[in-house]
Amino acid sequence: MDHFNIAASTPPGKGIFIAVEGVDGSGKTTAAKYLVRYLDEQLNAHRPEHDQRKFVHGTREPGDTPFAEAARELFIHAGSISAITATTLITAIRRDHWEKVIRPVIAQGGIVVSDRYLLSTLAYQNAAGGDFINGLHAAVIGKENDMPIIPSLTLFLKVDRDVANKRVADRAEKMVDHYEQLPEEEQLKRLDVYERYLKDINSLTIVTIDANVSEELVRAQIRKFVHEWVIPMIELRNMVALA
Amino acid sequence: MDHFNIAASTPPGKGIFIAVEGVDGSGKTTAAKYLVRYLDEQLNAHRPEHDQRKFVHGTREPGDTPFAEAARELFIHAGSISAITATTLITAIRRDHWEKVIRPVIAQGGIVVSDRYLLSTLAYQNAAGGDFINGLHAAVIGKENDMPIIPSLTLFLKVDRDVANKRVADRAEKMVDHYEQLPEEEQLKRLDVYERYLKDINSLTIVTIDANVSEELVRAQIRKFVHEWVIPMIELRNMVALA
Repeated sequence: MDHFNIAASTPPGKGIFIAVEGVDGSGKTTAAKYLVRYLDEQLNAHRPEHDQRKFVHGTREPGDTPFAEAARELFIHAGSISAITATTLITAIRRDHWEKVIRPVIAQGGIVVSDRYLLSTLAYQNAAGGDFINGLHAAVIGKENDMPIIPSLTLFLKVDRDVANKRVADRAEKMVDHYEQLPEEEQLKRLDVYERYLKDINSLTIVTIDANVSEELVRAQIRKFVHEWVIPMIELRNMVALA
Repeated sequence: MDHFNIAASTPPGKGIFIAVEGVDGSGKTTAAKYLVRYLDEQLNAHRPEHDQRKFVHGTREPGDTPFAEAARELFIHAGSISAITATTLITAIRRDHWEKVIRPVIAQGGIVVSDRYLLSTLAYQNAAGGDFINGLHAAVIGKENDMPIIPSLTLFLKVDRDVANKRVADRAEKMVDHYEQLPEEEQLKRLDVYERYLKDINSLTIVTIDANVSEELVRAQIRKFVHEWVIPMIELRNMVALA
């Protein structure tokens, strides 16, 4: 892995942004955490023990800033808001997350793994319309128009309805996640929406893995994703932050 | 005033939307309340006692819905967010206010008076850029593209810096208003921004009154505004809700 040590004159904004997406019960959060850990191990594998680094920044929507936490509470307690209001609110929260977390890391040539991103909005706020959601994303997140605002790679955990259903029902402690505030039936509808969007989006940037299987088998697929997609992309970009 | 009683076949969306704007210390909130009361009195002046109505719906940004109240709290406690994030958040809150309060009243041919609206965002979130603020407003509030999203009339309370400064300082109880969370110096800068925008906006829709004077003299100017601007507009539109 010492071929990462190329201190090339890479311009800023050359980092890699990976989103992990999937319906509730797909194992998305566990997968995102494993991806961060495994990728960091791989990038450190050939570095001396005294120079191990944290290359990969794991994050989640809506983020862990005080603003994002307050906004998460707002979502849970605000009562009924329309899909248009929700999309605009989520885009505001995403802008804060983008400014404070994602953008700085990518600008420095680092790697970000986010548990949920735009695809979740397309699936969960679908009633607002894909054009509206994408247009708002481009206007607000892409305000500076100097950096890609779509993830370099999206890891999509595909799961069957009944499997997701059972996992959500079995969950001992319900996660406090605004995406999970909907009735179970509503949540499962999202699976269809996700898959519809997957067909429309450039398939080169979305890698789908089978999330119906055991955690161990999901991990194996994540390792494959790292070696077949992430590391080649890092090599291709001669990422300066890894030098 | 019985010429309001024209049950014309007025199409929906023919109501009147009035925004009251001004920096903190301009007396804006007091003025908005008086405008609602006085206009209602005038519209009821020639109606029989048993048929007095509430024609004018007074409201304020961010609104009085549970969502708006929670969002107001969010603004106060969220710490430092950028002007772009703030504009997007305000636009989300405005969308909820628009859907639940302003739009239904206007659609029925009623009258809304709002304490603050878009001009406040242009003044207070000016760092995000006027094009960005107006573009977001058009995309989110104008999503349906079937109704004017700019107030029919804006009443602007113009006040000198030192007068506004003194009033804010004298205020016994600081209002809980996210627009007032800025340092005093910052707030007074807004006066310039307001006035700069006033020059750019179609002057026919913005009526400026002198807010340096006593409350009594401000009231006299509001009555003049009602008789010279609001009532002629109502007559012109043959508003069905007043029939």
